[in-house]
Amino acid sequence: MAETITWVMEPIPHVRLLDQTKLPSNEEYIEAKSVSTLIEAIQALAVRGAPALGAAGGFGVVLAALESAHSENPDQEFERLTSLLREARPTAVNLAWGVDRVKALKVEGPERMLAEAQAIAAEDAVNNKKLSEYGADWIERHIPCERYRILTHCNTGELATAGWGTALGVIRELAQRDKVEFVYADETRPLLQGARLTSWELKRLGIDHAVQVDGAAAATILRGLVDFAVIGADRITRNGDTANKIGSASVAIACKEMGIPFMVAAPLSTIDLTLDGGWEIEIEQRAGSEVSEFNGKLTTPMGVEIHNPAFDVTPHHYVSAIATEAGVIEPNVQSVAAVVRNFQEGNENA
Amino acid sequence: MAETITWVMEPIPHVRLLDQTKLPSNEEYIEAKSVSTLIEAIQALAVRGAPALGAAGGFGVVLAALESAHSENPDQEFERLTSLLREARPTAVNLAWGVDRVKALKVEGPERMLAEAQAIAAEDAVNNKKLSEYGADWIERHIPCERYRILTHCNTGELATAGWGTALGVIRELAQRDKVEFVYADETRPLLQGARLTSWELKRLGIDHAVQVDGAAAATILRGLVDFAVIGADRITRNGDTANKIGSASVAIACKEMGIPFMVAAPLSTIDLTLDGGWEIEIEQRAGSEVSEFNGKLTTPMGVEIHNPAFDVTPHHYVSAIATEAGVIEPNVQSVAAVVRNFQEGNENA
Repeated sequence: MAETITWVMEPIPHVRLLDQTKLPSNEEYIEAKSVSTLIEAIQALAVRGAPALGAAGGFGVVLAALESAHSENPDQEFERLTSLLREARPTAVNLAWGVDRVKALKVEGPERMLAEAQAIAAEDAVNNKKLSEYGADWIERHIPCERYRILTHCNTGELATAGWGTALGVIRELAQRDKVEFVYADETRPLLQGARLTSWELKRLGIDHAVQVDGAAAATILRGLVDFAVIGADRITRNGDTANKIGSASVAIACKEMGIPFMVAAPLSTIDLTLDGGWEIEIEQRAGSEVSEFNGKLTTPMGVEIHNPAFDVTPHHYVSAIATEAGVIEPNVQSVAAVVRNFQEGNENA
Repeated sequence: MAETITWVMEPIPHVRLLDQTKLPSNEEYIEAKSVSTLIEAIQALAVRGAPALGAAGGFGVVLAALESAHSENPDQEFERLTSLLREARPTAVNLAWGVDRVKALKVEGPERMLAEAQAIAAEDAVNNKKLSEYGADWIERHIPCERYRILTHCNTGELATAGWGTALGVIRELAQRDKVEFVYADETRPLLQGARLTSWELKRLGIDHAVQVDGAAAATILRGLVDFAVIGADRITRNGDTANKIGSASVAIACKEMGIPFMVAAPLSTIDLTLDGGWEIEIEQRAGSEVSEFNGKLTTPMGVEIHNPAFDVTPHHYVSAIATEAGVIEPNVQSVAAVVRNFQEGNENA
């Protein structure tokens, strides 16, 4: 697999990102040697996916420390750069989480910060593998099938994380157990992360799949063509409400109508216990040109207004299960906050 | 407004179609002087929309009569051409209906057939206006609002009909009554009929609107941004199950979740009483390249399988109302077949 995000020491220490806007046609890398280049890459979605943004935030703080050292007022410049980075995208909580976690170690110097950022990336891969196993176990326990037909939305694999993947990680785990029959991957307009990235990953993994337009998701579910759906998350609130790529809520309500499980797969870093419910999540509005232009060609008449929210919120009562590294949470019968706190306390006591 | 489909006498009698694949950037016409050219135009969606296909079927039969007159075995050739035409697209019932209606008059000669095809087009415009009034009345009776915020999917205006429009006709009728605040038009992947055509029509009509990706429809509804949704139909069965452009079912289930009306607007020619329910409707599968290519550029890795059903079926229990020229039918409390039969008998007795 290509490396989504890594720290590179030569010729100067910097962040290397696989430019996901160029996939699947080209595998190109962005060498982000300044915080502003990294922020541009984040905003252009060259690097994306909540867990990958956690690692990007962590490495970005190291970049900010190195960069600000040359300025007249290093502390002030470090604050300015890390604030800009933290706000680069509003919906995914992991970006701010990664920034804060590394920033807290500033007094210990850049090497300690780099070690922490590396740890974020390494832990992410480990956590994703773990939550995928828990998620796959839950599916096997709840759906007695020889092999599963699965629907997923957007991209949640290695490209969206620092390793293994979340929703795609659950699919991958089931595939390793020889339990996957077929995957329907929504193309995920406007930026086609499903068509471009998920399909690219599934092909490399040798998992049978088809790409479909997002509008086909509900019909595919209503026609009984899938056994469950699994998606990632950009932010999950205390009550289990889940912000994820626009189009996710539609998958969730179709699953509820058909009585099949709708699973969210995300590391604990995606859960934001400071928010009570989805109504408190800020939804990023992106440029209309993402919808009205394709390869520079207009798809609408000139000057038409575009409504382009990047995410939607799936209310928790549509969410059957949230697969995390602390186990699977069923948000309608369990307190998300209690599970998270028990797990964290257990880790601290261990 | 541009003329979607007309019969032209010069230089030889033929069908003229506005090439909808070129909109909104270019207004070009296709001069269909043979049945094969007309079939190509139908299959390429240069002319589309269930009611417009009814008129295309009618005019096409006249074309077949003129064309087959030159062949060795005119009757056999006429049969061959009209069968090909009738099967050019499987889901919209109106195409076969238009063909059959004109074909039945073959013994009376091409002039009588042409008059019948013209009548189909003229009646369609009249029926659409009538069903739009009934639909608008129903909305005003059921939703007490100053002005409505409406969601629609695909294109159902003048371009999809022989005049006025169906779902867009209801919106247009409400706009004439100064009852429209805003319209959300789904872009309608893969062929973007909403982004390209509905937006083009709404702009010309001066109705405030925004285009959004299909995946945003459910969220727009769940967020309370619309008062009702209205769509057209390609085939409606006896029980009220409705085949329409892929993505429609998702709009319907989101409306049900929010408890807002989901209206289908279609002339009686779209109702197929020979089918008991949606499970009997043949769903057209179209080429994968519609999804995986845009302006000749691939949006997926090479060779990926594409699932591309052109339509979905909305089960009748999600359909609040079907606006027809015979009045509004509420399929969950009324028999669609009884309303249609009463209306037809009333017309025969009149």
